[in-house]
Amino acid sequence: MKSFERKNQKYRSIIDQKLQSSIRKSEPVSLYEPMKYVLSASGKRIRPLLILLSCEAVGGTMNEAVNAAVAIEVLHNFTLVHDDIMDHASSRRGRATVHMRWDENIAILVGDELVALAYRELLKTRSRAIARVADVFTEGVVEVCEGQAFDKEFESRKKVSLNDYLLMISKKTGKLFSVSAEIGGLIGGGTEREIKALRSYATYLGRAFQIQDDLLDVIADEKEFGKVIGGDIVEGKKTFLLIQAYEKTSGKDKRIIQSIIEKKRTSASMIPVVKEIYERYGIIALAKQSIDKDIQQAILQLRKLRDTPAREMLFWFSDMVLNRQF
Amino acid sequence: MKSFERKNQKYRSIIDQKLQSSIRKSEPVSLYEPMKYVLSASGKRIRPLLILLSCEAVGGTMNEAVNAAVAIEVLHNFTLVHDDIMDHASSRRGRATVHMRWDENIAILVGDELVALAYRELLKTRSRAIARVADVFTEGVVEVCEGQAFDKEFESRKKVSLNDYLLMISKKTGKLFSVSAEIGGLIGGGTEREIKALRSYATYLGRAFQIQDDLLDVIADEKEFGKVIGGDIVEGKKTFLLIQAYEKTSGKDKRIIQSIIEKKRTSASMIPVVKEIYERYGIIALAKQSIDKDIQQAILQLRKLRDTPAREMLFWFSDMVLNRQF
Repeated sequence: MKSFERKNQKYRSIIDQKLQSSIRKSEPVSLYEPMKYVLSASGKRIRPLLILLSCEAVGGTMNEAVNAAVAIEVLHNFTLVHDDIMDHASSRRGRATVHMRWDENIAILVGDELVALAYRELLKTRSRAIARVADVFTEGVVEVCEGQAFDKEFESRKKVSLNDYLLMISKKTGKLFSVSAEIGGLIGGGTEREIKALRSYATYLGRAFQIQDDLLDVIADEKEFGKVIGGDIVEGKKTFLLIQAYEKTSGKDKRIIQSIIEKKRTSASMIPVVKEIYERYGIIALAKQSIDKDIQQAILQLRKLRDTPAREMLFWFSDMVLNRQF
Repeated sequence: MKSFERKNQKYRSIIDQKLQSSIRKSEPVSLYEPMKYVLSASGKRIRPLLILLSCEAVGGTMNEAVNAAVAIEVLHNFTLVHDDIMDHASSRRGRATVHMRWDENIAILVGDELVALAYRELLKTRSRAIARVADVFTEGVVEVCEGQAFDKEFESRKKVSLNDYLLMISKKTGKLFSVSAEIGGLIGGGTEREIKALRSYATYLGRAFQIQDDLLDVIADEKEFGKVIGGDIVEGKKTFLLIQAYEKTSGKDKRIIQSIIEKKRTSASMIPVVKEIYERYGIIALAKQSIDKDIQQAILQLRKLRDTPAREMLFWFSDMVLNRQF
């Protein structure tokens, strides 16, 4: 356990360093100051770690995949900067968002250049599979945009089914997870069977991660989570929980859930009320079951890989995602 | 002459067709409807033509470079969609801009996905030089963002020198021109000397093109130009003309130019006044000289290439840019 945590720390600090040194220019200042601001923010670096471990799990080395790992994190940061504009988010990781600290134009440009920077890092990769790696990466960008578009569409739609929701998160969150695993597997020289297993592992992991995120909004410890608890309820965000609650409740409870969905903003005083409904109808249990099932499926996929230290760490990694309080 | 126009038409219609068929998906509708809208707009397709002719000029075929040609046009459209948000532009090519017809969030997402789509098209290129092509393309994205950032910075800066301005347009406009020529040369298998000549040709052409654009704002025929004449003056945009006028005028004239620069919006009644100043101080002549000089330099670069029909057409092409009324 301890050794996994040490390795995680080590890889994180390598990624952090490379992120910071990925920008050498300083002009135009209006562009590069916020770019540096974004890339100096702390983060869990889940996607880079997925690339590095996937590469190692099929026999590759960390060094071969490190540029791609930096690339995926830069790309992830691009989605954060642009999503924050669209969501009118004022803070991220405890700091002001780019469009709040500077302005929207700057945030648009910063996101745009982050995409270019991501490709620049990716294209440093020396691998026989680079053409396929670049294709997979590009499909990742496409689907992340689709996922965000669905997410915004859902905001103004009254009825969103569980399937709609699962499709949306598979694109918005899941895709960059599976892209990471696939790219790692490709760079490491994995067989088609190995790459498929890694991709499936990451797909399940991504879904569990997102549903866990929805769940943490309701049950997490505010301090450790770093976000205000119940924010999704206040905003009427169509999460796994709210969608399931809409399907399973009736009578007065259903009317409450409906009002949460329909109102633009709900009073924070409703958070415990909704939470109680979630508990009474077994919605929280349902979310936990769904996460458990996905993690079990993810682990099954890993069993298809050779027994290596990297595979062991991927087991640990899914556990970490499952138990995260952040 | 006629044969060049015919070939230009033919290549344009190939690009138009490929642009339209580059999107096969239709969901999320909120994303793909505006994407199709953007890519169905007419355009001069200058950058794709530059790629195709540069490829042919060094011995390659049109077919080898056609995916890259589509890619550069998609990328150009990404810059238009995002720039229009930042410039609060309401119309483009006679149609409503994306953020006006839909909303800003959609326009951000559409631009983002256009970048991905551009890479997808580019990566279809089968060429031994694909790695370098992708690098050059990526540097193009980076510098276009830098150019736009400088342009926005200049809006709130009182003093912009001619050198500042030339650096800005070399990035915002010139870079995609030179990237196009370089990519065409690379795909066509040109020598380093040929590629350098093509790149320089396009750099000069791009600068002439942008200064011509500034000039047309003052001297063009409104109907043919498709834009309102004097728009740059009303907005106090720091064009080649305004910057030169600021340097060369004095007394009352300088105060007028200064007020144009300082005001957020100037009355349209000032357009003929400023135009008269431009004429009296020889600013218009200066712009024309600058364009002429650049075109002459561009032509000198072409002379370094073998004598081919494609080179002939590149001569014609620079002429077209010089004499364009659009």
